[in-house]
Amino acid sequence: MNNQREQALAYLRAHRDAFRRALGEILSIPSVSTDPAHAEDIRRAAAWVADNLRALGMQRVDVFPTERHPVVYAEWLGAPGAPTVLIYGHYDVQPAEPLELWESDPFQPAERGENLYARGASDMKGQVVAALKAVEALMQTGGLPVNVKWLIEGEEEIGSPSLGKFMTEHADLLACDFALNPDSGLLGKDWPTITYGLRGLAYFELRVHGPAHDLHSGLYGGVVHNPAIALAELIAGMHDDQGRVALPGFYDRVRPLSDEERAEMARLPVADQHYLEQTGAPALYGEAGYTANERVGARPTLDVNGLLSGFTGPGSKTVIPAWAMAKISCRLVPDQRPEEVHQQLLRYLEENAPADIRWEVTSMHGAAASISDRHSPAIRAMERALETVWGTRPFFRREGGSIPVVGQMQTILGVESVICGFGLPDDNVHAPNEKQHLPTWYRGIEALTHFLLNLKS
Amino acid sequence: MNNQREQALAYLRAHRDAFRRALGEILSIPSVSTDPAHAEDIRRAAAWVADNLRALGMQRVDVFPTERHPVVYAEWLGAPGAPTVLIYGHYDVQPAEPLELWESDPFQPAERGENLYARGASDMKGQVVAALKAVEALMQTGGLPVNVKWLIEGEEEIGSPSLGKFMTEHADLLACDFALNPDSGLLGKDWPTITYGLRGLAYFELRVHGPAHDLHSGLYGGVVHNPAIALAELIAGMHDDQGRVALPGFYDRVRPLSDEERAEMARLPVADQHYLEQTGAPALYGEAGYTANERVGARPTLDVNGLLSGFTGPGSKTVIPAWAMAKISCRLVPDQRPEEVHQQLLRYLEENAPADIRWEVTSMHGAAASISDRHSPAIRAMERALETVWGTRPFFRREGGSIPVVGQMQTILGVESVICGFGLPDDNVHAPNEKQHLPTWYRGIEALTHFLLNLKS
Repeated sequence: MNNQREQALAYLRAHRDAFRRALGEILSIPSVSTDPAHAEDIRRAAAWVADNLRALGMQRVDVFPTERHPVVYAEWLGAPGAPTVLIYGHYDVQPAEPLELWESDPFQPAERGENLYARGASDMKGQVVAALKAVEALMQTGGLPVNVKWLIEGEEEIGSPSLGKFMTEHADLLACDFALNPDSGLLGKDWPTITYGLRGLAYFELRVHGPAHDLHSGLYGGVVHNPAIALAELIAGMHDDQGRVALPGFYDRVRPLSDEERAEMARLPVADQHYLEQTGAPALYGEAGYTANERVGARPTLDVNGLLSGFTGPGSKTVIPAWAMAKISCRLVPDQRPEEVHQQLLRYLEENAPADIRWEVTSMHGAAASISDRHSPAIRAMERALETVWGTRPFFRREGGSIPVVGQMQTILGVESVICGFGLPDDNVHAPNEKQHLPTWYRGIEALTHFLLNLKS
Repeated sequence: MNNQREQALAYLRAHRDAFRRALGEILSIPSVSTDPAHAEDIRRAAAWVADNLRALGMQRVDVFPTERHPVVYAEWLGAPGAPTVLIYGHYDVQPAEPLELWESDPFQPAERGENLYARGASDMKGQVVAALKAVEALMQTGGLPVNVKWLIEGEEEIGSPSLGKFMTEHADLLACDFALNPDSGLLGKDWPTITYGLRGLAYFELRVHGPAHDLHSGLYGGVVHNPAIALAELIAGMHDDQGRVALPGFYDRVRPLSDEERAEMARLPVADQHYLEQTGAPALYGEAGYTANERVGARPTLDVNGLLSGFTGPGSKTVIPAWAMAKISCRLVPDQRPEEVHQQLLRYLEENAPADIRWEVTSMHGAAASISDRHSPAIRAMERALETVWGTRPFFRREGGSIPVVGQMQTILGVESVICGFGLPDDNVHAPNEKQHLPTWYRGIEALTHFLLNLKS
């Protein structure tokens, strides 16, 4: 097997230019999933992925239609007894607008310095092609040491509306030991990173109703509880003076951070100064007793995402509004459950809302948090792969946001994901001049090759 | 003089039909001040007022142009040594739209039952003609017992933009002992009412800034103080748990209610049930220790008139907004000063705003409260006049809203106003099917006649 490792690495080095050209091919297809004008491009991109999977020697390649954009499935199950890894990816991209801010055509990949510029270069055609090429290197040097399945969708940038149904209907086909999700990145080019936790979400709309209609603040100011003020009072009570969320029972299920995990997080090369620079806020804020990284990655939060009430135009209008609205969302961590947080919000309002207003809560969206065992064989295999290529122990990160597909795979397929891709924080993802740092990309292909080999050994 | 009183009353009774026809004439002129298409109607209405003042025998009648609509000024100063009363009015009206909701043409006055329906019938051509006819009755029966000046503007319904400048430039011309402002009404047809206090206003826009730009609540939730939450916390702190406004020093200048004034207010024929019905709120709210009438009329308040932050459309967006805005206004009572309330708000924010946000306050509008001495000769004269006509002691009311011209006359001319007109609460002012209750109108003309006579005796 060490022999194959050396052969595979030699193959990678010998084919860099070919890999780069393959990436250029798919980046030239403007597979913008949100725009019906690009339906044919979406079809071409799916076909490109399917063709390349066939060329790799996959035993089965299918393009499944969905209500919108097709899912490409492929498999190679020639390693009986070895683990099966499901490689996730998406071939669709964000729109390129505003076009005038691009230095080169977003769909004519252009190399400048060490970077390749194109829409999707980092998010995530670059990562899909990296996985294809790692598998190619092994297929060309004696075969894969593990079984692989591929699930490459075309709707990620529009919220993956078909994916849950597809996974549910094809759960047997997609059965695997774990997933590899390279829709992610490094903290910096010298800082290889594994994301092992993602926060969940519970999103609500809270409406407070006071008078039956807007009132003149002169004629009625002093006799009714202003709903905008009542809403503010309710929101103000949702945190205590330690920055903790005050919904009853909110922390009951929160998995505490182990000393070991806190030590890993303390190694992360971003800290307060990073967050100050990224946010531009006058000072940081948060739950007492936790570092900024811990607060973003491993602690739950409550935010107000929107407020609306009464008169909001220029000038003044002396109205007591009939109602006030807040969009309120909680980022959740293991083992909080979105539906329980909903109940906690209702209980908070039942206990704290005054009798002189009415209120209603709509639950808009819920997703559980996810966390993977950092000591699982799959994550250990990736940890060793990254250390081999970068010469440094990787960082373990818990991310504050959600990757819905990771939660769906956990719920529907019952598998954890190894989240590790090779984008960089300054890749301009979803923005003009998106790029992939090519040296990091080549390292990524090597790391994925080691990863697959490590899974066997 | 008693002789003149009887003659004047007889004159009134004999001329009711003529008065009603005169009112019909001016109500037929669609003097809508906000609509440039009615500029000629505005001119005609001003001319009608000036012609009628001349016909009364006023010694001087002038139509002063302004930047928009003319001011009609008139005077009769034939009672040297007697008080001079400045009668305020406006000849402009609100637009009549929506026209389809009117049962008869808004500018073709129509009598149905005891009411005369037309735009401006109550607000306030009816009140202007009532004053003209009271003066006519006295001029026709021996002359006026006091000196009168008239200030009849054409911009009240668009906020009187020219009036302050006009009063300042013509302060000598307008010099008087007090003003009569009949742009008001009774609490009910059997409840004659004198308004002797009006609240003032201090209106602000408060903006709270957090991060330099909107942030993803997953990536940054937990490290910045959400500006919408910080704003809610600041607003929540603006009242204490007794419903009192918590700006520092807010009550320092508030004139306390005397036992006598509270007893007068307790007589008012409106109370909690009235406010519950009018507002449709689930329960009343307000400063502990005061009745609803006291809270609306004689106690200052702080209301939020608008809230805006972040994402407010349908659905969900996981944003930490960069800023949040509240429109905040205080209703003021004597002797609070709007500019001091501005300072109190700034001090509250300096003392309470956390260092992790920035804030700014814009002062939008300020107007002092006004109150008249209920025992002044002018108000006593009106009190006796109403009691004579209605056979019941009038109610003394402090209104929660503002009548800006009353404050301007106080500030610019240094005079108090007797606020007493003869509209009713169900007159549909500013709405379709505006009307004037004619029996109340005739009583009003009688009351104004007694009032003018009472001023002398």
